[in-house]
Amino acid sequence: MSQATPPRSRRVPRAERREEILAAAARVFGSKGYRAGSLAEVAEQVGITHAGVLHHFGSKDRLLWEVLEYRDRVDVEHLEGQHIPGGLELFRHLVTTARRNADRRGIVQAYTVLTGEAVTDGHPAADRARTRFGVLREDIASALRTVADERGVDLAEQDAVRAASAVIGVMDGLQTQWLLDPEVVDLAESTAFAIEAILRAVLPGVEPLPDSPGASGAP
Amino acid sequence: MSQATPPRSRRVPRAERREEILAAAARVFGSKGYRAGSLAEVAEQVGITHAGVLHHFGSKDRLLWEVLEYRDRVDVEHLEGQHIPGGLELFRHLVTTARRNADRRGIVQAYTVLTGEAVTDGHPAADRARTRFGVLREDIASALRTVADERGVDLAEQDAVRAASAVIGVMDGLQTQWLLDPEVVDLAESTAFAIEAILRAVLPGVEPLPDSPGASGAP
Repeated sequence: MSQATPPRSRRVPRAERREEILAAAARVFGSKGYRAGSLAEVAEQVGITHAGVLHHFGSKDRLLWEVLEYRDRVDVEHLEGQHIPGGLELFRHLVTTARRNADRRGIVQAYTVLTGEAVTDGHPAADRARTRFGVLREDIASALRTVADERGVDLAEQDAVRAASAVIGVMDGLQTQWLLDPEVVDLAESTAFAIEAILRAVLPGVEPLPDSPGASGAP
Repeated sequence: MSQATPPRSRRVPRAERREEILAAAARVFGSKGYRAGSLAEVAEQVGITHAGVLHHFGSKDRLLWEVLEYRDRVDVEHLEGQHIPGGLELFRHLVTTARRNADRRGIVQAYTVLTGEAVTDGHPAADRARTRFGVLREDIASALRTVADERGVDLAEQDAVRAASAVIGVMDGLQTQWLLDPEVVDLAESTAFAIEAILRAVLPGVEPLPDSPGASGAP
């Protein structure tokens, strides 16, 4: 990783520095885990001080939330429009995401712990988590409507929302079981199975979902 | 609730006292929430001191884990054998459980927060969470095998485990979304929809799942 470490004296624009910190944090927390990953190690990788990281992100929890959003952004960078795709392509993208998540355990830990905490009444991150789920539900419901229209399937609005909630729910819940028991729960295969099951419930006869093109299954 | 409060001087056997504390904790945390519910209020409802609650359960987190197991026990008390049922009845029981959970928000919060924390490396509750998921996965996989045998459906072992993981996963994930956005995510209906979708993927043509008999939807 030494090529990513600029000399301490280099002047780096604020936005660029934030991206460097996020990339380092994704590596450190992804491999070391939510607890063992430290701000000190993130700082060292970027060639700044611990206080420098706090200056940009405020706290470990806030940095971790930003890392999760950074991961969402990076995951769609290779896609057209650099945005989560629509139609069936979205579901292939979700399966690809699960496959990638299996190689960044610490990031999945951070997501699970932070989201779990956010459900308590008045938690400062509740709005952030609520908004993230709301946007994702609407993206998925919209993709379902697109596929239903293309195929002339009658899709009740209520079913679109239920299926969208279920797709997100099963991805999250399988992550928790996989984190605790990776030998028993295969994150990528279980996720693909469950997403296809939910898709078929609202879009009968939909084809199997291989990974999206352009996304390698390799670490 | 005053009829449940014994006079402070009464001598109560240890096991009975523990049950009283668990019942009170399920009420207090269920209605007040994971954070706002206090050991002091639990103690008051039972007519003992805060130190008395700690004597029996050690800490708030440990009490909450026991409350979750207490809920699992209470939820099957009306069933034959007072054990989680087998075959299709198990899936009706899970839908009924989701319906009941919608009326005990604080307990669902406790489950979500405690399970979320348990996925970090070396967490003291990781074994407890891992065992709980393992037992539940095997109960569900076994129920799937029973139904498949009854109907002469060929069910691959791998699919039984994937479907079992997915059923638990979607229940957990939907709870998180419901806690954050109860107006948008209907816990009971979304759970029923998702469980049926997963069932149909491995047991084609399975009938819809009404709630299990003997379980009222009322709070």
